[in-house]
Amino acid sequence: MNSPSRPTTAGGSPPRTRVAVLGTGRMGSAIARRLAGTGLELVLWDRTRSRAEGVGVGTVAETPAAAVAGVEVVITSLTGPEALRGTFLGPSGALATASGQSFIEMSTVGPDVLEELRPLVTRTGSTFVDAPVIGAPPAVLQGAELVIAGGERIDVERVRFVLERLGELRHVGPFGSGSRLKLVANSFLGTLVLIAAELETAGADAGLDRGTTFDVLTRMVPSLAMRRAGYLEDRHTPALFAVRDLRKDLDLALGVFHRVDAHVPITALVREWVDEAAAKDPDLDISSVIRRYSGSSGGGMRREGALLGRVR
Amino acid sequence: MNSPSRPTTAGGSPPRTRVAVLGTGRMGSAIARRLAGTGLELVLWDRTRSRAEGVGVGTVAETPAAAVAGVEVVITSLTGPEALRGTFLGPSGALATASGQSFIEMSTVGPDVLEELRPLVTRTGSTFVDAPVIGAPPAVLQGAELVIAGGERIDVERVRFVLERLGELRHVGPFGSGSRLKLVANSFLGTLVLIAAELETAGADAGLDRGTTFDVLTRMVPSLAMRRAGYLEDRHTPALFAVRDLRKDLDLALGVFHRVDAHVPITALVREWVDEAAAKDPDLDISSVIRRYSGSSGGGMRREGALLGRVR
Amino acid sequence: MNSPSRPTTAGGSPPRTRVAVLGTGRMGSAIARRLAGTGLELVLWDRTRSRAEGVGVGTVAETPAAAVAGVEVVITSLTGPEALRGTFLGPSGALATASGQSFIEMSTVGPDVLEELRPLVTRTGSTFVDAPVIGAPPAVLQGAELVIAGGERIDVERVRFVLERLGELRHVGPFGSGSRLKLVANSFLGTLVLIAAELETAGADAGLDRGTTFDVLTRMVPSLAMRRAGYLEDRHTPALFAVRDLRKDLDLALGVFHRVDAHVPITALVREWVDEAAAKDPDLDISSVIRRYSGSSGGGMRREGALLGRVR
Amino acid sequence: MNSPSRPTTAGGSPPRTRVAVLGTGRMGSAIARRLAGTGLELVLWDRTRSRAEGVGVGTVAETPAAAVAGVEVVITSLTGPEALRGTFLGPSGALATASGQSFIEMSTVGPDVLEELRPLVTRTGSTFVDAPVIGAPPAVLQGAELVIAGGERIDVERVRFVLERLGELRHVGPFGSGSRLKLVANSFLGTLVLIAAELETAGADAGLDRGTTFDVLTRMVPSLAMRRAGYLEDRHTPALFAVRDLRKDLDLALGVFHRVDAHVPITALVREWVDEAAAKDPDLDISSVIRRYSGSSGGGMRREGALLGRVR
Repeated sequence: MNSPSRPTTAGGSPPRTRVAVLGTGRMGSAIARRLAGTGLELVLWDRTRSRAEGVGVGTVAETPAAAVAGVEVVITSLTGPEALRGTFLGPSGALATASGQSFIEMSTVGPDVLEELRPLVTRTGSTFVDAPVIGAPPAVLQGAELVIAGGERIDVERVRFVLERLGELRHVGPFGSGSRLKLVANSFLGTLVLIAAELETAGADAGLDRGTTFDVLTRMVPSLAMRRAGYLEDRHTPALFAVRDLRKDLDLALGVFHRVDAHVPITALVREWVDEAAAKDPDLDISSVIRRYSGSSGGGMRREGALLGRVR
Repeated sequence: MNSPSRPTTAGGSPPRTRVAVLGTGRMGSAIARRLAGTGLELVLWDRTRSRAEGVGVGTVAETPAAAVAGVEVVITSLTGPEALRGTFLGPSGALATASGQSFIEMSTVGPDVLEELRPLVTRTGSTFVDAPVIGAPPAVLQGAELVIAGGERIDVERVRFVLERLGELRHVGPFGSGSRLKLVANSFLGTLVLIAAELETAGADAGLDRGTTFDVLTRMVPSLAMRRAGYLEDRHTPALFAVRDLRKDLDLALGVFHRVDAHVPITALVREWVDEAAAKDPDLDISSVIRRYSGSSGGGMRREGALLGRVR
Repeated sequence: MNSPSRPTTAGGSPPRTRVAVLGTGRMGSAIARRLAGTGLELVLWDRTRSRAEGVGVGTVAETPAAAVAGVEVVITSLTGPEALRGTFLGPSGALATASGQSFIEMSTVGPDVLEELRPLVTRTGSTFVDAPVIGAPPAVLQGAELVIAGGERIDVERVRFVLERLGELRHVGPFGSGSRLKLVANSFLGTLVLIAAELETAGADAGLDRGTTFDVLTRMVPSLAMRRAGYLEDRHTPALFAVRDLRKDLDLALGVFHRVDAHVPITALVREWVDEAAAKDPDLDISSVIRRYSGSSGGGMRREGALLGRVR
Repeated sequence: MNSPSRPTTAGGSPPRTRVAVLGTGRMGSAIARRLAGTGLELVLWDRTRSRAEGVGVGTVAETPAAAVAGVEVVITSLTGPEALRGTFLGPSGALATASGQSFIEMSTVGPDVLEELRPLVTRTGSTFVDAPVIGAPPAVLQGAELVIAGGERIDVERVRFVLERLGELRHVGPFGSGSRLKLVANSFLGTLVLIAAELETAGADAGLDRGTTFDVLTRMVPSLAMRRAGYLEDRHTPALFAVRDLRKDLDLALGVFHRVDAHVPITALVREWVDEAAAKDPDLDISSVIRRYSGSSGGGMRREGALLGRVR
């Protein structure tokens, strides 16, 4: 590896690998904390500097270019294709100082922007893999998740020692495969969350206790449990996954699916529903899709009692 | 309890409770074996006598009436409302000899037929609860599942010692609640299975490895694992849950939901898809819905290679 | 024809055919007025007597039985299966005095109740055809519509002289065919009205003038024109066709389609939408489904200006 | 108007306006014939020269640039955004020789490519309006259709004398409005055609005569009549509107609608169905969507008899 300005240590003990994390939102900051906790040296950057400082690990750089200059590994965790382009390109962008780094894209940005940026990354002598995490930020902190990496085998192996700190690492195919698979996973998650809301509400309309129904659905999809307050108490903050972001992911997924003529009617319909929720309260957690049902049938959560009476 | 002809034992040790199981299909036979294995005395009946004999536990009765005559507890596990009516009514039906038994309905028959039969059951001095199992028959054999019971609390408590042998018992509400909640659960299951098929196929169309995609989806819905051969090898027998039965359950569920004006667009759409699959191969496992996608997009499983080339 | 108590006229001119119209809602009263206007003698009955009196033609009977007693032809125009049963059965029902009449069912009640009542009708020596009208009540007043009749050819011919006064008569198949075809037609109408609302709203969101869009859609579906006030001014009264009735028809249609395993995904989805509209304002005209869209996208009609600015 | 090299005529009679038609497919050739028939002088160009020659009117140019060089008005009628770009740009593209012409875009290309090309057009001193036709090519030949024009009022007025030869002209809003409204209209058409296929097939499954059902649906949507052979005889050639083109239009429409957060569930679902039909036989007429239904329910057209038996 052509490591730029790798620090040497006096006593001969090997220097710690330095990792830049560009983008310190929910997922980026969880990644940074986990990597710092497992002994790596961190450099953080975020468009909102105070957010990077708030993470409380490593040092904070002024620009992506500055963050990349002194590290061996660069992880990006951003909100979408535009943010990724903005972070890589331009005079203070990550690629301005890149030279032989290992880039790891961990956002859900879709395969198009990856293909677009890839030649620009490799031109700097750097490698590029896309390796999103399957799982929620809290689990990343324990290294308990699955990391799905796309790219050349050799490039994936080169960053194995980093990615394995975040969870089980799985090489899932050529470059872009991680991103595509992540879109499939998030489409699945979106549908699970929406249909659970539909059925919990329909069950309540039919006189069933919401909590009991939720417990039964959670037996089948254990990860629903982390959204209990959303489903039962209409509390959708803080957002583990904002409905705005789910909509973005569904749009990216449908773009990928439609391009290869895949037939995805349920996903397309789910996207329309999520869009409605996103139009109203984009920053709430995706559990807020339940409001779409509660409101629509003329009451939902609020008129449970009345309905119960009506069923009997 | 007004136990008709309860056998007394010579040495004074308490007689074993006798349970009739009416209907010995996949679920009924699993229930019978589990109850026999935990020390109860079984009387079986099935419309197809050889099927009851094949279970290999207890004795086999000629008619529902004969089966009910000498037992304290009667469990029904049948294919639908018509079968339930046929088993309860008529001169050789279960109610012909009923007198003070505890009836437990464990099929997925929907609440309407239950309401219809209930006064006829109570008129015999018997009690009636609806208590379907959430889970697949194999798990019932280990007593590892959840039993969701609807009915008067006293009636549910009266059969607790039987139902707890089959799994965790939960009293979920008034009579009919078990049946309604089971319809909610099966609607959820049907959607999970269908959307997993849609997304696995769309992912394959987009160049992803089917096995890898399946693994990721299974992380989110662990119970998909038991359908691995269906999703990856197009093998849909033996059916754990026949697509014909899922369609029946979705129709019952939509009937319940529509009556209370619940808004269930995704469920309604899923029903249409499942119906298509059921029209072709009704006896296959519900994993066979994947054929709907594979065929539709002009190849699916078969043209994976071609598509892969196209994506890159 | 076994005409009970047909009146003779003094001068020997042939007596006018007497027709009972049972149910004088929007359609029933239009039928009665048209038939009276073309020279038939009318006897009216409605559950709400004042409504029958308000029609202003013929005489008003106390009960269906009384209305039927002195006529040759009986037309029913009611709100659904229950109303039809209530009108035919019981001591003061139409069948109590029926003897050799020609019964014509012109409601949208679905084929099931027709099959149920048919043997009871023929037992009285009467004939029975189902002959709904395709078209709106106002057109019936000019005899400008299409009447689709199901039944034995001879039975249909026997009432031709009555039905042709209401519009073009077409014998569409065996008994029940008129009712089934009417359900198909109303399902089509419901979809047209809903998708027009969806597209007009989406067009407005994209900056198009609502009136212009409506004109273009109306070129393709001329009958939309009668709902101009609904689409453009949010005025949905008086209801030409109440959303509650459309929902009922869609439920009947889906019942018919599902029984024969027809695959009807769009219809099933449309039903869910209409149901939502019906839950809120059941008595408004079906054009009110547009509120579903306007509300959902966060404004619709109200924020047109803002959106326009946003697009360009 | 800055008319480049407008020919003068000897006797002083005003010279005929020269119009270039770029793209002579179904619609382009109908436009060219109609304009020639009403006295304009035509220059045609098509990527496939023989197709332009086959139109039989005007002269044929080698390149778009050559076609544009000597005319006052330029009409484009192409298959999509890519074709439009290819025709306008490059050394032999339409803009290479443009200077003060009136450009009229009459394809269904969506608003994005229009916005992209507009500054390039105006830079040549030319004007640009988008003015698609609502209607089928045969009607254009009689000048019986509606032309919906978007653009500055002055630019639309400037080409009024040309567009009014093709049908009623309506100025529908700023530049791009014609294109957006055309997408709305084609989305409506696609849904009408699909739901008619769904309901005709469901009706046939329920025992109704296909021809009778088709007649009733056609009463509500007269333009269905031109697809009679498709709906009743499974003949989908020649394509009036190829299913591949409908899919393209639905994708463009959904792109427009999603960008402004319009809620379009029915349209999104229709797109998925059309996509399936397009994957199989892209060049057939859109009436071929009926195959989707016939096949799905296990027979459709072919098993009508059997089903009829089953219903009775």
